[in-house]
Amino acid sequence: MAFNIGLLGLGTVGTGAVQLLLDKSGRHPLLQELVIRRVGVRSLNKTRAVSLPLQVLTTDLEAIVSDPEVDIVVEVLGGLEPARSLILKAINHGKHIVTANKAVIALYGDEIFTAANQARVYVLLEAAVGGGIPVIQPLKQSLGVNRIQAVTGIVNGTTNFILTAMHAADRAFNDVLADAQRLGYAEADPTADVDGLDAADKIAILASLAFGGRIKLPEVYREGIRQVSQADIAYARKLNFVIKLLAIARQEQTYPSNQLQVRVHPTLVPQSHPLASVNGVYNAILIEGEPIGQVMFFGPGAGAGATASAVVSDILNIVADLKTRAQASATNVTAHPLLTCSHQDYCRVAPMADLVTRFYARFLTQDHPGVIGKLGTCFGSHGVSLESVVQTGIQGDLAEIVVVTHDVREGDFRSSLNEISTLEAVDSIPSVLRVL
Amino acid sequence: MAFNIGLLGLGTVGTGAVQLLLDKSGRHPLLQELVIRRVGVRSLNKTRAVSLPLQVLTTDLEAIVSDPEVDIVVEVLGGLEPARSLILKAINHGKHIVTANKAVIALYGDEIFTAANQARVYVLLEAAVGGGIPVIQPLKQSLGVNRIQAVTGIVNGTTNFILTAMHAADRAFNDVLADAQRLGYAEADPTADVDGLDAADKIAILASLAFGGRIKLPEVYREGIRQVSQADIAYARKLNFVIKLLAIARQEQTYPSNQLQVRVHPTLVPQSHPLASVNGVYNAILIEGEPIGQVMFFGPGAGAGATASAVVSDILNIVADLKTRAQASATNVTAHPLLTCSHQDYCRVAPMADLVTRFYARFLTQDHPGVIGKLGTCFGSHGVSLESVVQTGIQGDLAEIVVVTHDVREGDFRSSLNEISTLEAVDSIPSVLRVL
Repeated sequence: MAFNIGLLGLGTVGTGAVQLLLDKSGRHPLLQELVIRRVGVRSLNKTRAVSLPLQVLTTDLEAIVSDPEVDIVVEVLGGLEPARSLILKAINHGKHIVTANKAVIALYGDEIFTAANQARVYVLLEAAVGGGIPVIQPLKQSLGVNRIQAVTGIVNGTTNFILTAMHAADRAFNDVLADAQRLGYAEADPTADVDGLDAADKIAILASLAFGGRIKLPEVYREGIRQVSQADIAYARKLNFVIKLLAIARQEQTYPSNQLQVRVHPTLVPQSHPLASVNGVYNAILIEGEPIGQVMFFGPGAGAGATASAVVSDILNIVADLKTRAQASATNVTAHPLLTCSHQDYCRVAPMADLVTRFYARFLTQDHPGVIGKLGTCFGSHGVSLESVVQTGIQGDLAEIVVVTHDVREGDFRSSLNEISTLEAVDSIPSVLRVL
Repeated sequence: MAFNIGLLGLGTVGTGAVQLLLDKSGRHPLLQELVIRRVGVRSLNKTRAVSLPLQVLTTDLEAIVSDPEVDIVVEVLGGLEPARSLILKAINHGKHIVTANKAVIALYGDEIFTAANQARVYVLLEAAVGGGIPVIQPLKQSLGVNRIQAVTGIVNGTTNFILTAMHAADRAFNDVLADAQRLGYAEADPTADVDGLDAADKIAILASLAFGGRIKLPEVYREGIRQVSQADIAYARKLNFVIKLLAIARQEQTYPSNQLQVRVHPTLVPQSHPLASVNGVYNAILIEGEPIGQVMFFGPGAGAGATASAVVSDILNIVADLKTRAQASATNVTAHPLLTCSHQDYCRVAPMADLVTRFYARFLTQDHPGVIGKLGTCFGSHGVSLESVVQTGIQGDLAEIVVVTHDVREGDFRSSLNEISTLEAVDSIPSVLRVL
């Protein structure tokens, strides 16, 4: 049997996928049955790293998604449009979809999966989260028997590269960002990465799979890493933490049913935690469930080859299913229950004020005796109990005080900070970070 | 639809699986369609942690594997017999098999998969390697598009617990083993764990999946951890290594085609390596392939809940496939190409003498000037180049010298050791370990 692929986009990931599909020996034998029928590009004149027959390349992307010979449309354009429209048109033409596009799935997943379920086609997206790391399919297939309690990930390679470099070399965010841009690890406009938008897309997708309900992307709480300073990194190290941008989805037993935390923010991670040693552009996703306990998936979060591995493995999963049910009449097929995504409901995202977590905060205060006592009294009156208080040094004529709290309701902690910021002895509160 | 499970064994893993199958809310909805029809036990009178209807329990295991109502036989007996015979009989009766039994698959996989392919049934074994960690199914489904270069795992929780404790507390193997036995992390007869048999079973299975050929278990090279001393652990730490029992399957480009290394031995792992921080009873499997690079799967390598998660996820994978093709006529079904195991050929396992690796060796010698020179000369004459040589101290009237080599052919290194052991200045060579 031959299965025809229509590829939308021939950038980094598209090129990687074509290279893999053209170089089949030593890989799964099912690859022999895949044919690249059309590849949609913006320009026919650009020099390409892969050589494809001239008639395969086209600038007419609409023609690919409606081509009756195409079985599977692979969308690696990125961005919201025309990706969304093309995916929906392909679905309406009965094509199965493989996509690496976290943004379009995180924002339009509802519309896309509803259309796919009506058309009885699959939409697979392993490459959208964690690059090459198998995590979407294991969540659907291997971990689905668990009650998932939490998904905690380092899912953005750019910010992990920057934070790792800041830790290793005691350098400022802006310097390291400039380096990352020179090395190609960060975009010229780094907003999507450093402000946490990319990580928010990814945790929305992971939360949806882990907790069986759709997530409204604007409800995902998001803080980026621009405000992480060298001082914070140094204090974190002293306190046996490293600072990582974590994407977290968690269901607390104390929450009303089906309420989730879904949040992205820089976090102090204990040095002994499995995520603490995930460095550079690597990604890792830690999943906690009952009865499995903790499992972690680690690997390259980006890159042409790794992402292509995920894209082509999705193609293979679809083809394997199509082969299995080739004998069933086409009108009477049951979609594979571990490949489909059939959530109808939305998860309710809990307000951040209800989050219970530890906090790290750094204060600049007058260098008077008794300031720590005033802070402590103020925290205590809001029910905030402190794990450690360190007067760490002097900056100019101000004293620098760092506190780490015990678990506290975020709303209570914010109230205490509001009151503290009005104290005459307190100059400013340069950093507030959550602690894992 | 209802799918009937026949469970062979109600020990730790069996009990965990029953608990999971009886407590379905909040898990994958497909679990609702699973029915525990029969559970085979040795004694009906034993008190059980799960309550099952009396008519479900039976001591007649043969009756379960031939029960026409049973769709899937779950074998969690462990050991070679009667597990092997019951699995084969179940296959001959057209049952799909889910097993947690690494020993029976590693030794009789050829016979079992041949029978299963003839009978057109699945044999799934996620729980056989890495407890709850999804690694078998990702290898088959998500990573199959890669050319796998190496699988390197910490796959035995008992030995990892022992080595971790030896590192943490500077204690001797025998003391820690006794503790592990008291805590239930090691068996009364610890042979299968500490001598590497369990890890050898598991790497044979992983190698077979990763490299697409069967492995003859006796060809797996195997060294246990009994000879790892406190002294070696202390020197490893000084040299920035930790000692781990690794199970390794690797295809070298320089090898004749289809030759693999498949080996289990204590190994010095650089402290910065992802496997170095896998501690206690946790397992991790690092897979290297092209184009994906490195991915690692980390989690609990044993335990009732984790292993049950893997067992029930295999059941779900089979049921999902059965539902998908329910409309196809029974005589005309295609087995799902990513669930089956259809290797016909055996991988050729390379002789250890051809392994190229770094070595660590510890020598006790006369405390004379010039001994290091003699060692160096002898190594040099066999083409063994040294990365570091440390004269580490005095034991009684002997000097202790530790060397770490550059990459060297194992055969050449062994020849050099043979010659060194005849030198008058050399008292003994208490330790020889490989370095990752």
